[in-house]
Amino acid sequence: MTESRRGRPRDTDIDERVLRAATAMLLEHGYAGLSPNEVAERAGVAKTTLYRRWPTKDHLAIAVVARLQEDDEITDTGDIRRDLTGYMVKIAAALERMRSAGRPAGDHDASAGVVAELVAAGARHDDIGRLGREVFARRNALALALITRARERGELRPGLDPVVLLDQLAGALYYRVLITGAPVDRAYTERLVATALDGARN
Amino acid sequence: MTESRRGRPRDTDIDERVLRAATAMLLEHGYAGLSPNEVAERAGVAKTTLYRRWPTKDHLAIAVVARLQEDDEITDTGDIRRDLTGYMVKIAAALERMRSAGRPAGDHDASAGVVAELVAAGARHDDIGRLGREVFARRNALALALITRARERGELRPGLDPVVLLDQLAGALYYRVLITGAPVDRAYTERLVATALDGARN
Repeated sequence: MTESRRGRPRDTDIDERVLRAATAMLLEHGYAGLSPNEVAERAGVAKTTLYRRWPTKDHLAIAVVARLQEDDEITDTGDIRRDLTGYMVKIAAALERMRSAGRPAGDHDASAGVVAELVAAGARHDDIGRLGREVFARRNALALALITRARERGELRPGLDPVVLLDQLAGALYYRVLITGAPVDRAYTERLVATALDGARN
Repeated sequence: MTESRRGRPRDTDIDERVLRAATAMLLEHGYAGLSPNEVAERAGVAKTTLYRRWPTKDHLAIAVVARLQEDDEITDTGDIRRDLTGYMVKIAAALERMRSAGRPAGDHDASAGVVAELVAAGARHDDIGRLGREVFARRNALALALITRARERGELRPGLDPVVLLDQLAGALYYRVLITGAPVDRAYTERLVATALDGARN
């Protein structure tokens, strides 16, 4: 995968060329600046080919998110604190990148940007919503497996519900980006994982 | 406040009449079905009066959310597990109500509905985003004070960051409604508070 992305551009397939162009355009110009027609042109693909595969701009945007999430790999070192921190730092970085897409560099606007536009697209169109939930279910399955393994080897409480722990961690990051507008930097993310693992109770 | 809302309709002021009509309309018909013109008519208020106070539909919708949040009172019984559970159950119920607004009763669609539309409105319009963040900052200040008092009386760890705990709890609920589409019922909410307080670590 990595090889076909970086080298040999003539061998990459149409999907990959379109998604690469769409990703660049979304991150550079934001949601309002993503144009399927221009993506087709940049990717050297017929518009009809693009629209057959991604009927609307929203479908294309969700596909970009799914592709970006493939880069957020999960590492299992056997130390759940370290692994969860590493993974959450990746999610936080991806959220910050999507939030600030299309805005000038160094702009510290608290707006949720593209993240919010995608959430709204999912609420407006049933099929986009379903696609988005499938993308997250696939990604979250890997994190849930990581948490389950840590529970099985005794690092986590036997009765812990992996879904609740993942909701607490990922949820806090999304809540800050989408609702309160607070930053999600590495220091915050480390504090978040430590608090979830150690508990708030004295 | 409660008295002027329930009784003496002639004495209630214009704001209250408009917001009551807008709340009913939003919950009944959803975001797409909220019409400022029709709200003005139902409230018996001139359109110009309504638009002077709430220039767009988004401004009106944010005001409805702010008003609904006033109903989510925080009770401080001195037992933080009980108080956080009670408060989070209220937030979860409000989210479920907003998510299903405008849909037939008994519809268990996982879509984030009005919640997502509001988040997107905040991302599209800077002033709406700012207003939304102010509404949440005001509400969250009360929850943060509750958590801080529990920390001071020794129920919570001395080094606990109240913001992190609140992000974990509220964040998990918003994440399920906005991203994964999972339900936020009382059983889930109780498990969430227990896990955050006790910690995931064995």
